[in-house]
Amino acid sequence: MGIYLDNNATTRVDPAVVAEMMPFFTEHFGNPSSMHGYGAAVGGKIEWARGEVQKLIGAAFDTEIVFTSGGTESDSTAILSALKAYPKRREIVTSVVEHPAILSLCDFLESKEGYRIHRIPVDGKGNLDLERYEAALSENVAVVSIMWANNETGTIFPIELLAGMAKKVGALFHTDAVQAVGKLPMDLANSAIDMLSLSGHKLHAPKGIGALYVKRGVRFRPMLRGGHQERGRRAGTENAPAIVGLGKACELARESLPIELTQVAALRDRLETALVEAIPNCFVTGNPANRLPNTANIAFEFIEGEAILLLLNEEGIAASSGSACTSGSLEPSHVMRAMGVPYTAAHGATRFSLSRDTTAEEIDTVIRVMPGIIERLRKLSPYWTSQGAAAGFQPVYS
Amino acid sequence: MGIYLDNNATTRVDPAVVAEMMPFFTEHFGNPSSMHGYGAAVGGKIEWARGEVQKLIGAAFDTEIVFTSGGTESDSTAILSALKAYPKRREIVTSVVEHPAILSLCDFLESKEGYRIHRIPVDGKGNLDLERYEAALSENVAVVSIMWANNETGTIFPIELLAGMAKKVGALFHTDAVQAVGKLPMDLANSAIDMLSLSGHKLHAPKGIGALYVKRGVRFRPMLRGGHQERGRRAGTENAPAIVGLGKACELARESLPIELTQVAALRDRLETALVEAIPNCFVTGNPANRLPNTANIAFEFIEGEAILLLLNEEGIAASSGSACTSGSLEPSHVMRAMGVPYTAAHGATRFSLSRDTTAEEIDTVIRVMPGIIERLRKLSPYWTSQGAAAGFQPVYS
Repeated sequence: MGIYLDNNATTRVDPAVVAEMMPFFTEHFGNPSSMHGYGAAVGGKIEWARGEVQKLIGAAFDTEIVFTSGGTESDSTAILSALKAYPKRREIVTSVVEHPAILSLCDFLESKEGYRIHRIPVDGKGNLDLERYEAALSENVAVVSIMWANNETGTIFPIELLAGMAKKVGALFHTDAVQAVGKLPMDLANSAIDMLSLSGHKLHAPKGIGALYVKRGVRFRPMLRGGHQERGRRAGTENAPAIVGLGKACELARESLPIELTQVAALRDRLETALVEAIPNCFVTGNPANRLPNTANIAFEFIEGEAILLLLNEEGIAASSGSACTSGSLEPSHVMRAMGVPYTAAHGATRFSLSRDTTAEEIDTVIRVMPGIIERLRKLSPYWTSQGAAAGFQPVYS
Repeated sequence: MGIYLDNNATTRVDPAVVAEMMPFFTEHFGNPSSMHGYGAAVGGKIEWARGEVQKLIGAAFDTEIVFTSGGTESDSTAILSALKAYPKRREIVTSVVEHPAILSLCDFLESKEGYRIHRIPVDGKGNLDLERYEAALSENVAVVSIMWANNETGTIFPIELLAGMAKKVGALFHTDAVQAVGKLPMDLANSAIDMLSLSGHKLHAPKGIGALYVKRGVRFRPMLRGGHQERGRRAGTENAPAIVGLGKACELARESLPIELTQVAALRDRLETALVEAIPNCFVTGNPANRLPNTANIAFEFIEGEAILLLLNEEGIAASSGSACTSGSLEPSHVMRAMGVPYTAAHGATRFSLSRDTTAEEIDTVIRVMPGIIERLRKLSPYWTSQGAAAGFQPVYS
């Protein structure tokens, strides 16, 4: 196995999670809605899992947790529910740096359904423009959807402040917390957040499972209609093995949160400091003072991020440029553009996202190989040779 | 392990399917959209799985297969896509015996969105009223959704005939084939069907995965928006392990289709014949001449189906009454009511749904214990003692 530093794209399923899931494929495989023993054994375990999700995010009631097929479904369900519940409010407030799960939906709602979308800009460090945010809020807004932490830079938004402001105009507040759950402490019982999306595969549970938190009392309209599952809030046979896996993953995440906040953060800092020191013309993007503990996004000027990834891959190191959900595009990521990172640097933005499985040895290997990779690529770069550090070039962005 | 005869509710995941999935949890766990080796290994296997689904249903192109989280999502996606693609057509044609995934959605579209729903009735054997069907078709109809085979009785609808009729008025034709895929031969390349829903967990793949077939050229509007996955038709990180599992399950289903059509059908017939012979005042519901090979639904007069299920459960036998998705209701199933089965018999309708794993010994056990269970329950039934067979009572329904 190589060195996996792309945990914001997806995580390895924890072997303990797989072990917990296994009996539900071939032994306790019944439909939890069934009247017989095959089903009964499953229902109880699903409720255990619901309780584990509840505990990880600090929700007041386990009935506030609705299992979904993942982050995208949770996001769509939340936004569409709010629009149906408040049909007279025809505006949505979001940020320019949201995940495509929110941005694409908002683009569609704007162009095809006539909703007005306020996309709040961010500053050079990825912090939300609070003045513009406040100005966008009104009684026409059905729902605000602002991510808890950005997937590319790890920058954390002041989510409680934002939620409180949204509540003042009677708007629902939703947060895509897919990158934040399991990496930051959460206490939704004492929060103004109405809805929160999380995804299993970002926290060592399998793909294809997620949850939507819906605070008790919040008006809700289901997206998937059919059977009575999830108390009528999400139809479809319960994905029992994956739900159980998510429960176990939440239990493990709760236990390892201190590791995430200290050990993982220390390794990330070590990586970042060493690379910025060793390599000229590169800088950390996002807000170093207020970030997820596991994310380092470094922009290397005058080279293509994809070339970096290919050479890293040859060394057995997995990293990423931008979001996996937008890869394949030749444009620099919308997050880098939104922060005003110049093209010459945005193209070379490389995200290293760690997990509790990341070791010091792995980080040292990256620190060792990375300067050579950058040097090699810059020798091939016409931008570098004409404008580069040899001529004392200073980055535009700092 | 007991005797599992509730395969229309859900199936045991085939151990070969689990084995195929396993490496994708902890080894090839990458995001298939990622640029590095962890992702690359996954993408190819997903395309293999897509090809296996294609082969099982006889689709012309593998690009016609869109992976979803299951039957309910596939059904909702198909109907909502058709409505968005043909916004001027404000009517839907369906049947009274559809799964709740279709019926609940249609109820919502009727009561909240102003669509007109034509719910075509069935006769006493569960066959669709073709005159009423034809009368409902017009150029106002955006989509027809008729199940391939009924989940409770196994009755098969003349799906090609129905699809051909729908096409004449320019309506899209969708079929919920969740119960039919893997149990009947299919050749969608030579079919008028535009869209077809299937569910993994009904054919020995895991829960939480399904597919929607969308014929090439059919106008399509996604329900889940976000990333570019599934060629823009279904956003969200691909559920790689479950997709691989579905692929393997489809391969196995294709290989075992002859078993399904002969061996499973023979066991079902043996069970049915023996029970009807041994037990007075019971009859087979649905159309015995045109049914899924694995499904027997027998109505035992003057008793509660749920009581039968409990006593069967004590013997380690799992069966069901109606759909798992509507269990918990005290009403007899909507399918029994639609066929005009009298309440005194509809309440005692019991579904035995077999699979390729069902053995002759298991069937013989059910044949042995069932008469005693029915006798025991009838002794407790006020209806039976006052009106029952001892007085030469003949069933109203035949």
